[in-house]
Amino acid sequence: MRLMPLMTKAFSILLLLLGVASAAAASPSLVLNEDDIGALREASGGLLETSLQANKIVADEAIAAGIVVPWPKDAGGGYTHEQHKRNYKAMYAAALQYQISGDTRYSHYVAEMLSAYADMYPQLDLHPEKKEQTPGKLFWQSLNEAVWLVYTSQAYDMVAETFSDELRDRLKNNLLFPVADYLSKGQPQTFDKIHNHGTWAVAAVGMVGYATGRDDYVEQALKGLDRRGNSGFYKQLDELFSPDGYYTEGPYYQRYALMPFVWFAKAIETNEPDKAIFKYRDGILLKAIYTTLELSYNGLFLPINDAIKDKGIKTEELVQALAIAYDITADKSLSDIARQQERVSLSAGGVALSKIIAEGEVVPYNYPSKVYRDGADGEQGALTLLRSGDNESGTLVVAKNTSQGMGHGHYDRLSWQFYDDGHEVVTDYGAARYLNVEAKYGGHYLTENKTWAKQTVAHNTLVVDKASQFDTDLDKANKNPAEQVAFIQDNVADISIGRINTAYEGVQLTRIQALVKPKSIEPFVIDVVSIESDTQHLYDLPLHFNGQVIDHNLENSESFNIWKPLGKSNGYQHMLLRSEGNSATTNNRLTWLMGDRFYSYTYGYQAESAKQANTLFFQLGANDPNHNLRRDQGVVRRLKADSAVMYAVLEPHGEYNGTAEYVRNSYSRVNSLDYKPTKTGAELTVDMGQGLTYTLILTKGDENSSLVKAKVIELSEN
Amino acid sequence: MRLMPLMTKAFSILLLLLGVASAAAASPSLVLNEDDIGALREASGGLLETSLQANKIVADEAIAAGIVVPWPKDAGGGYTHEQHKRNYKAMYAAALQYQISGDTRYSHYVAEMLSAYADMYPQLDLHPEKKEQTPGKLFWQSLNEAVWLVYTSQAYDMVAETFSDELRDRLKNNLLFPVADYLSKGQPQTFDKIHNHGTWAVAAVGMVGYATGRDDYVEQALKGLDRRGNSGFYKQLDELFSPDGYYTEGPYYQRYALMPFVWFAKAIETNEPDKAIFKYRDGILLKAIYTTLELSYNGLFLPINDAIKDKGIKTEELVQALAIAYDITADKSLSDIARQQERVSLSAGGVALSKIIAEGEVVPYNYPSKVYRDGADGEQGALTLLRSGDNESGTLVVAKNTSQGMGHGHYDRLSWQFYDDGHEVVTDYGAARYLNVEAKYGGHYLTENKTWAKQTVAHNTLVVDKASQFDTDLDKANKNPAEQVAFIQDNVADISIGRINTAYEGVQLTRIQALVKPKSIEPFVIDVVSIESDTQHLYDLPLHFNGQVIDHNLENSESFNIWKPLGKSNGYQHMLLRSEGNSATTNNRLTWLMGDRFYSYTYGYQAESAKQANTLFFQLGANDPNHNLRRDQGVVRRLKADSAVMYAVLEPHGEYNGTAEYVRNSYSRVNSLDYKPTKTGAELTVDMGQGLTYTLILTKGDENSSLVKAKVIELSEN
Repeated sequence: MRLMPLMTKAFSILLLLLGVASAAAASPSLVLNEDDIGALREASGGLLETSLQANKIVADEAIAAGIVVPWPKDAGGGYTHEQHKRNYKAMYAAALQYQISGDTRYSHYVAEMLSAYADMYPQLDLHPEKKEQTPGKLFWQSLNEAVWLVYTSQAYDMVAETFSDELRDRLKNNLLFPVADYLSKGQPQTFDKIHNHGTWAVAAVGMVGYATGRDDYVEQALKGLDRRGNSGFYKQLDELFSPDGYYTEGPYYQRYALMPFVWFAKAIETNEPDKAIFKYRDGILLKAIYTTLELSYNGLFLPINDAIKDKGIKTEELVQALAIAYDITADKSLSDIARQQERVSLSAGGVALSKIIAEGEVVPYNYPSKVYRDGADGEQGALTLLRSGDNESGTLVVAKNTSQGMGHGHYDRLSWQFYDDGHEVVTDYGAARYLNVEAKYGGHYLTENKTWAKQTVAHNTLVVDKASQFDTDLDKANKNPAEQVAFIQDNVADISIGRINTAYEGVQLTRIQALVKPKSIEPFVIDVVSIESDTQHLYDLPLHFNGQVIDHNLENSESFNIWKPLGKSNGYQHMLLRSEGNSATTNNRLTWLMGDRFYSYTYGYQAESAKQANTLFFQLGANDPNHNLRRDQGVVRRLKADSAVMYAVLEPHGEYNGTAEYVRNSYSRVNSLDYKPTKTGAELTVDMGQGLTYTLILTKGDENSSLVKAKVIELSEN
Repeated sequence: MRLMPLMTKAFSILLLLLGVASAAAASPSLVLNEDDIGALREASGGLLETSLQANKIVADEAIAAGIVVPWPKDAGGGYTHEQHKRNYKAMYAAALQYQISGDTRYSHYVAEMLSAYADMYPQLDLHPEKKEQTPGKLFWQSLNEAVWLVYTSQAYDMVAETFSDELRDRLKNNLLFPVADYLSKGQPQTFDKIHNHGTWAVAAVGMVGYATGRDDYVEQALKGLDRRGNSGFYKQLDELFSPDGYYTEGPYYQRYALMPFVWFAKAIETNEPDKAIFKYRDGILLKAIYTTLELSYNGLFLPINDAIKDKGIKTEELVQALAIAYDITADKSLSDIARQQERVSLSAGGVALSKIIAEGEVVPYNYPSKVYRDGADGEQGALTLLRSGDNESGTLVVAKNTSQGMGHGHYDRLSWQFYDDGHEVVTDYGAARYLNVEAKYGGHYLTENKTWAKQTVAHNTLVVDKASQFDTDLDKANKNPAEQVAFIQDNVADISIGRINTAYEGVQLTRIQALVKPKSIEPFVIDVVSIESDTQHLYDLPLHFNGQVIDHNLENSESFNIWKPLGKSNGYQHMLLRSEGNSATTNNRLTWLMGDRFYSYTYGYQAESAKQANTLFFQLGANDPNHNLRRDQGVVRRLKADSAVMYAVLEPHGEYNGTAEYVRNSYSRVNSLDYKPTKTGAELTVDMGQGLTYTLILTKGDENSSLVKAKVIELSEN
């Protein structure tokens, strides 16, 4: 500017007093950089507008509320805990608002807040309600302190240019460095841990490093406290994701873990583009983002392991991750996700995604049928998805042939889930928890998470002798993943084969699931559970489903007017028996109505040693004094045998239209199922009527007597 | 046109051969007239475009399928039944398509179809599967035949100009007149009946009259077979609706009954505007349309009496009625309904509504708190709605103080329903029926409709001695409506008082329900059930609710691991007892979570003769061998006393946000309820915390010892 120095200063003071936009703020260079701010200053309209307004509201309300920095006192959920959480979000929103508008009211607010923290922090001891292993100072646990610093270091970075040298030094020495020191050398066990808590700590310290020019912090963040690379960000990238970007606890926790990964990576990219962090390990971070997006149906995450079912792709973490992914890949199909998120990140990527949507240029995201390998080496089984159609109303089969997923894992190897027409149809209970609902055990995991949700019978997989897999021995379970034997795709069907022989002693389970995609009728599922055992066991195969039972064809069916629990432990104590009937060897059928569509499950078994098979209808609710469980329902197919095959077809069909008052195709298409062992394996033939038959051909391996290959053959008379 | 006559003719023949649009079709003059067709020809865009395309698809698909007029054979749901239904819709769609496009392919199709019917109809005897009382010829019941003629006469009217004189005569003499004759003098008992079946017959015959110039048909339609006015359309308008446009069976059946009323009225308006039919009986038809629209929540009809709960304002009947209402009233707020219907009628009204929406000029429809009187004279009780906010996410209390509602009525005088945040919260079971689902008893009403859905305990009203009202004696029930004692509205609350003393011998019930509308917190309900009796009875007050139980404060609460039915008859045989506890005299509390919101029900009782009161948690499912019932839940408040008052507050509060992971205000605001009899009546004081109290003051009548007035007083310390 070519004004006189004095004029300039006077003008600046005037601006300051009036709280009017200054000419131009220098751009930040952490997660948000020059490109982001440039894009944000020029953009308008669409989802971006909504998101900009939302940020302004947070910032304005924070300024209106004033600077409130209470002395740490309360545990999670309590007042001081929530206030310090509000503060870091407020600082971030205000700092960003300053960058977008140049309005110094926002930077002043951040300066005041940071100063208040700088006054207090050096005086703090460990938090009075500290968690034993991982205490914090501002918060009861250091995880929250790391999250606080991740946000706060970014806020500092966005407004630091407005500070005097003296203020900057004070904030660094009394606040940023002490918190970073505490989170690194102050708690090496967490900082160096290969775990998402470690990622938050590493990201926090690394971001302070970039924001203040402290290369030592950056180096420790990347390579661990001793800077040798046995811990730190790179090691976390190596070990916390599978080669396909799958996080072993499942998408619910993956979503949470993702935030520090992508934010810190973007900060690295801004400051050290030569490191090409997004190309590291064959682009593992982008894979992790794409995988998290894909492990969802109609906006909600697949409830794998401990997962709360109302969580989905609209969460803040995925909004941020999506924009960063777009920034790196320019993959236009990510706009299809942004459309569903109904908001965008305030960043260059967010601006671009909003523009694509506003201009009607959304490219549909192609959700693939795919094997997502589990384990850092990719050899701990897999989560396999078979898909037909889109992710909002199409058909999806989820085969869980993974490892245990650590402490949040469920004992559910070879379980499956089925989604169709926008609904969860064959269901997984998820976690027994009401997050943040104080009346429900303080919002923590409930007792029923252990007694029901984690148990094998709470899932759609085989229960042997009414026990859970590995007898719920976590150590044993951690050591024994399932095996993804095969994944086959052709024009007729997508097929997954999973196996485990460690879940129950002396019992090998192989499960073949085919999503058949006929041209003229709805996609349907063929499901074969092959059980090999030398001794006799009681086999229970549950099918948990959503919807109203329409009809079944069981013989000697008895309906009970008094409902009793199905057992005393391993989850059975929660299941009330409402009716039961005898299952024929084949062509048993159950039809239910879910939403506007009918679902028919046609099933049978093949087992020389079996006498009578039964089907039991159950509902949850026994031994649930606090009304903690949802009143979900299902059937259990029960069989006593040694080796056996339990097979089924699940088909969506027809339509119930309440508005126009018509119903079409309310009956199953399946005329018959025919299962036959063959010399090389087995064949299951499904007669779908109208001259259409499908044969699933299962083939044994050469040296191994177990099934290793599968194919579906379509035969049409027309 | 100034072409040579010969040229013109040659050109016409060419057009005919090519199936190209002719220059201009003469306008019809029945339900659709000159104005409608003119508007349709010029319009484009918005919802109209979608609706136009939908009509074209029906017409084109019908032409592609060809002329299929099978000899009548099957009952409802069977092939010939469905085909004749398809045919009248196809003729209507094609005839309209001809009017819009002038394309003679469409008129030819209608001509061919009508000719085929004219060939067949004179040969028909009564239908082989005929219904005893009301047989048809094309269909098993004459109702379907009337509906067929209502559509077919309109199709004829739209294309008749393209017919030769000879064809026109043949169609009149061999088809339209014979069907009209059969529906009038051929079945006087239906034609002259004051019932919606009669309305269809009258509309059909009257429309043939207008379309063919047969004034005698018109006169019979308007005034009955003997043309004296003791039956016919006017009489139906006099007797089938209450003065407020309420139809005694409830909105589900009202919606169905509406179609012939509004269509025939529009045909009268077109042909004899001097009759001012829409002004008849103080505009009763418009009142009926508005009332049907208002007896809904978030798009679905209130499930009053036998009602299937997935039916709502999107039905064809209401789409047609809405456009006709707009045509008469030019009430722009009807566009708010059209927006929710997501389509418009193909008529001038539909064009106008589509335009309002496309231009962003939608005016919100003002859903009122209102008493809808029941009975032709308006003196058979009332359905009373108390509202706050809009109809998609606002709060709605429904007080059912009506008459029985004839054969489809439920034994539920003084029952209530509660809607909030887009959800049904305090629920009514509706009808036990899966319409058109053949596996469910052919789609008819199920046994459980009688054993459960109609019973008193299936509703939110008092059950005395475990019996249903009037001991389910329909004659007695038909004779004894409830009384709408008062309806009071002021700034603080809307209040309804209902009463009945005939439902149970020796027991008078008065129910006061107030929807309180505080400025600073969510609206809430005060509910007082006042019972007067000289002898002791067992009182059960059920509360059927949607959602997950969060917490309750009952003492000595016991949860059962074996669930047993609550009784043997009157609906109790379907209810399984899952837990129970003792109720204190006051401040018992039950909190549940529905969608994103918490609901707390705080309750107590006042009864000198009562000893212990209990609260029973139940779920449906016993004595339901065919899985016909939904597994709904609720609580029953149980008390043994003579005179008693059972009072409660129901308050929506707080928020559960799964995406952003926070919960606020998950606890009830109510500190205490205090009920006190006074000299002049009684007072119920609700302490809502933070210095806010509300007192419901109930006042007795001068000569009558029962409560007749009510008022809510707000006291705020601030």
